Amino acid sequence: MDTLIITDVAPRDGLQNQPTFVPTEAKLELIRLLHAAGVPSIEACSFVSPKAVPQMADAAELMAAVGRRLPELRTSALVPNQKGLERAHAAGVREVAVVLSATETMNQKNINMDLARATAVCEDTLQAARALQLRTRAYVAVAFDCPFEGPTPLNTVLRLAIRMARAGADEIVIADTIGSASPGTVKTRFDALAGELPVATLAAHFHDTRGMAVANAWAAIQAGIRRLDASVGGIGGCPFAPGAAGNAATEDLVLMAEGSGLHTGISLSGLLKAVTFAQAQLGRELGGRSMAWLRRRYAGHDAVPASS
Amino acid sequence: MDTLIITDVAPRDGLQNQPTFVPTEAKLELIRLLHAAGVPSIEACSFVSPKAVPQMADAAELMAAVGRRLPELRTSALVPNQKGLERAHAAGVREVAVVLSATETMNQKNINMDLARATAVCEDTLQAARALQLRTRAYVAVAFDCPFEGPTPLNTVLRLAIRMARAGADEIVIADTIGSASPGTVKTRFDALAGELPVATLAAHFHDTRGMAVANAWAAIQAGIRRLDASVGGIGGCPFAPGAAGNAATEDLVLMAEGSGLHTGISLSGLLKAVTFAQAQLGRELGGRSMAWLRRRYAGHDAVPASS
Repeated sequence: MDTLIITDVAPRDGLQNQPTFVPTEAKLELIRLLHAAGVPSIEACSFVSPKAVPQMADAAELMAAVGRRLPELRTSALVPNQKGLERAHAAGVREVAVVLSATETMNQKNINMDLARATAVCEDTLQAARALQLRTRAYVAVAFDCPFEGPTPLNTVLRLAIRMARAGADEIVIADTIGSASPGTVKTRFDALAGELPVATLAAHFHDTRGMAVANAWAAIQAGIRRLDASVGGIGGCPFAPGAAGNAATEDLVLMAEGSGLHTGISLSGLLKAVTFAQAQLGRELGGRSMAWLRRRYAGHDAVPASS
Repeated sequence: MDTLIITDVAPRDGLQNQPTFVPTEAKLELIRLLHAAGVPSIEACSFVSPKAVPQMADAAELMAAVGRRLPELRTSALVPNQKGLERAHAAGVREVAVVLSATETMNQKNINMDLARATAVCEDTLQAARALQLRTRAYVAVAFDCPFEGPTPLNTVLRLAIRMARAGADEIVIADTIGSASPGTVKTRFDALAGELPVATLAAHFHDTRGMAVANAWAAIQAGIRRLDASVGGIGGCPFAPGAAGNAATEDLVLMAEGSGLHTGISLSGLLKAVTFAQAQLGRELGGRSMAWLRRRYAGHDAVPASS
């Protein structure tokens, strides 16, 4: 049976945009619940400036605790540059991710660099991570449309993905940051990417702004992709991208994949426990497009409402 | 540019299960709004027993009014048997649909017949409709899973679809009545069907119970299907199938198709007008998975461009 590897990015991409600070112990519990549900890979936090993203200020503390309490779990941390990489490495992180936006304006607005400089920073960070023998992921963000520039040229996406691979990225994550992709564009872009790079190194990261995330995930799977990012409960958004909604929900992708004959190793009832916990922490209702059905299906969880 | 033909079934499949009777004038206005939005095909009503489905008691009156006021529009009506066909024909209907459930139990619970008898009734009705020179659609319902029997054998679906084609059906509508299909099963079933019947005669009808309808529609499109049923605002359900939720929303399928380079001829802002009208009639919020985004997009509050 074909295996699909899902990386749950809820603790990082999901939480970074939340208005209330989630305590380190709660982040740890969310990670523990995801691990207990069978999620094989978790993006746990981001070593960015605490001023820019206060939600991630406890990254070092969190990663140290994860290392102590869940040593067998594969977690990764986002690092913006070599300084972030050093902090992550000092905290015991074994896998890091860099983010490269594919347009000039997005880089200017996000990190106040032009695209060439941002690319060089990512390359340097990847090479330094490689020297530290860390596993690496490289996001190519706004890889479909940019909220400021419109459609991102496919050639740019291909060029940047290849540069990240050459700089040593073990995994290239093609991200539909604002959730504007359609399955037809996903097919076109991933078919082209799979023509340039080993398909096993490619991953897809969708947001569900237009309700298209599950269809896009299926289109990526049909193009041979077997690594997908998702966020339990669909928690998420991007603080720097206007109009971005929650990530593809982990439960939606698991339901779709398992129903289509792909093995994820993830338990839907386990994910429901994580959603229930996250709801209590964030004080609002969470859940992907399948949540109403899942709640009925696993009716034991019906009685646990969002706390608010 | 490839064309996708969407049949909006909201006036029939959408309304048949609504608790409050929708007046004939309101049904006519919904049909007019769908026509104005560019929907090329509309399933307008059902000539079933008014005792079984009171919502459809005004079928003859509605179809006569549609014929007078929207003579250029392609509408169809569901007929359960030759008696229903005669009523539909007397009302000026030019296209009819029959429904054949693919399992014994569903037929027993739904129409108190066994599968063999139900098949024969559909064949007779199709042949009689053909003799009247009407265009015909034949649904194969519960073509993925039956709420009473579980997974429906693919061979049964193939056999019944072929029988409907031989009896003269111009279009065979493969229906995921309870919304349990996944894109992988859609691919398997439609690939098999397309191996047995001309793909141009096949249509797909999805329900969005698990949030899988858009992904399933894309999987059907990838199998060569160019006819999809949908219901504006996702109105719908099936009174006889426990667990069935609303139909695939027309706006979701149009957004997905147009974003993927398929032409539908349907205006999203036109569909929003139909949803707003239907909401006022039914007294509750309607809309597919893209509705939050569509409302922002067409309110001028969203800077995100429509991808093309």
